[in-house]
Amino acid sequence: MSNLQKSFSPAIEIELKRQVSRLDSPRSHPFHEMLTYHMGWTGEGSGPSAQGKRIRPLLLLLTCAACGGDWRRALPAAASVELVHNFSLIHDDIQDNSDKRRGRDTIWMKWGMPLGINAGDAVFVISNLAMMDLAPAYGSDLVFMAAEILQTTCLNLTNGQFLDMSYEARSDLTMDDYWAMVAGKTAGLISACCAIGSLLGGGDETTREAYRNFGHYLGMAFQVQDDYLGIWGDSALTGKSTESDLVTGKKSLPVLFGLEKKATFAKRWVNGPISANEVTKISDQLAVEGARKYTLETADQMTDLALQYLRISNPQGDAGQELFELANKLIGRQL
Amino acid sequence: MSNLQKSFSPAIEIELKRQVSRLDSPRSHPFHEMLTYHMGWTGEGSGPSAQGKRIRPLLLLLTCAACGGDWRRALPAAASVELVHNFSLIHDDIQDNSDKRRGRDTIWMKWGMPLGINAGDAVFVISNLAMMDLAPAYGSDLVFMAAEILQTTCLNLTNGQFLDMSYEARSDLTMDDYWAMVAGKTAGLISACCAIGSLLGGGDETTREAYRNFGHYLGMAFQVQDDYLGIWGDSALTGKSTESDLVTGKKSLPVLFGLEKKATFAKRWVNGPISANEVTKISDQLAVEGARKYTLETADQMTDLALQYLRISNPQGDAGQELFELANKLIGRQL
Repeated sequence: MSNLQKSFSPAIEIELKRQVSRLDSPRSHPFHEMLTYHMGWTGEGSGPSAQGKRIRPLLLLLTCAACGGDWRRALPAAASVELVHNFSLIHDDIQDNSDKRRGRDTIWMKWGMPLGINAGDAVFVISNLAMMDLAPAYGSDLVFMAAEILQTTCLNLTNGQFLDMSYEARSDLTMDDYWAMVAGKTAGLISACCAIGSLLGGGDETTREAYRNFGHYLGMAFQVQDDYLGIWGDSALTGKSTESDLVTGKKSLPVLFGLEKKATFAKRWVNGPISANEVTKISDQLAVEGARKYTLETADQMTDLALQYLRISNPQGDAGQELFELANKLIGRQL
Repeated sequence: MSNLQKSFSPAIEIELKRQVSRLDSPRSHPFHEMLTYHMGWTGEGSGPSAQGKRIRPLLLLLTCAACGGDWRRALPAAASVELVHNFSLIHDDIQDNSDKRRGRDTIWMKWGMPLGINAGDAVFVISNLAMMDLAPAYGSDLVFMAAEILQTTCLNLTNGQFLDMSYEARSDLTMDDYWAMVAGKTAGLISACCAIGSLLGGGDETTREAYRNFGHYLGMAFQVQDDYLGIWGDSALTGKSTESDLVTGKKSLPVLFGLEKKATFAKRWVNGPISANEVTKISDQLAVEGARKYTLETADQMTDLALQYLRISNPQGDAGQELFELANKLIGRQL
């Protein structure tokens, strides 16, 4: 971890704890405990590995600092974006019927679906309140702009989530449908982190737009890479082939590419679920039909665009350097 | 319906439709349709009876006008509070496993639980965006204050919901626990409507505080009345005794009063579920132990406090007159 991130990370955790403690009162102590468990601070298996990488708040603070702003003043916004992310994870896990998250029982597995939904709602409300904590340092006008970016992003997030879920039942999907879903569901919040960070760092409109695009393509590249690894990554092919996207039936980019080809892969796909012992053969077939090459090239294009926009953003100082490093770490390294 | 409400009601529906249409795009048309169904505008059984009474936006606009403000400018806030209410209804229905709402299938019954959770999330996001639409007319500082009132209310709402759900499993509840839950879950949003209405109407701090208290006690009185009707109302005693709170096991105020007495009712209650044919006998027993009188007196006290605070608020003009009428209509008339 770099020097700046060594300062950022504990400050982010402290700010997140402060925000989440809004719920702590004698009567609602067990409610507060649900959230501290989910955030990885308490309960079985708590600790850094249960907390996730906090990529979104890091991006926000690095962007703020790379625009010449004081990252400490932006901490409530960093907490806010991380809480939005966690709100969506809590509801996602219920919607997907997922029992594990970062190796631990999901919140709804421990406390049941009704309390789980409510915990997600509370995390979203706290993210809104966190954003308002910026007001003493930045004034209402700027907070308003930051909140507008975040709420528009959240609307796109629910829309992306709708598309993702409704795609499961559809057999007529194209890659265009995929891009619309990923833009809302994955790239939107990463993009918002960079846009809000540059806003709070004092970036002008052109700079903010460049950072917004950097975040957008970073998120897109990250998702395409994830889709690649879901079929051709080590854990999808060796060892845990039950986790291959081919087995779970996820309509990822390579799958949609293959379906549009209407060749051997597409015929097998529509024939019903793929079992773990078919994974190697079918992923090879998909590669033969060009999906592997297309996915790698697309990830490369998105990565190039992200880095181009980051250069246009002209990030300053150590934070600027670390933004390039973080982006490179998130994308491309494992391909 | 009074004259002012005749103008308010269609204007509220138009504003709500405008806000909800944020989701309407070719790709997400079916998502938008989920919300227009829930709001009572489209689908089987749509129409005024499916839309609810829109009490909260009416209260907000009447309060605004009674403070001398222009209610038309406050319409986005009216839509915002109604959307918060509907967000909580959508998630409540999932949490309570309720299949009907206002005589129609609930949203999750029609589209399933995962899409239902997501629709509730979207409605909450839209309520946040609606509030921001006030900015051109009122400026960021005032919008910020209104948003802060609403978000704090939403945090209390999730806390009240947590208490409500966790009370189901507890046998040691007191009336104090009840008041904490009702304050968060029912009275908070009504109180916020009055506080925001008076803020947007130009009320000074003292006036706003009086309206806030009016809304709080109005909400409390309404809930206590609802608890009374849940046991001694016509539909609880005659005809639909399966809907009696005694049968559903709801820990309402009269039940908690009875439990604190630790007498005949309490002994029966802890002995297991109450069947429909026991309803008359047990509600009589609860009355003998003083719960009926206590509940009526409490509703009266809350009503008196609400009306006192409304008089202190000194509401002006026709809107002021209608605020008194609406309050009287909501509380006490059916007792």
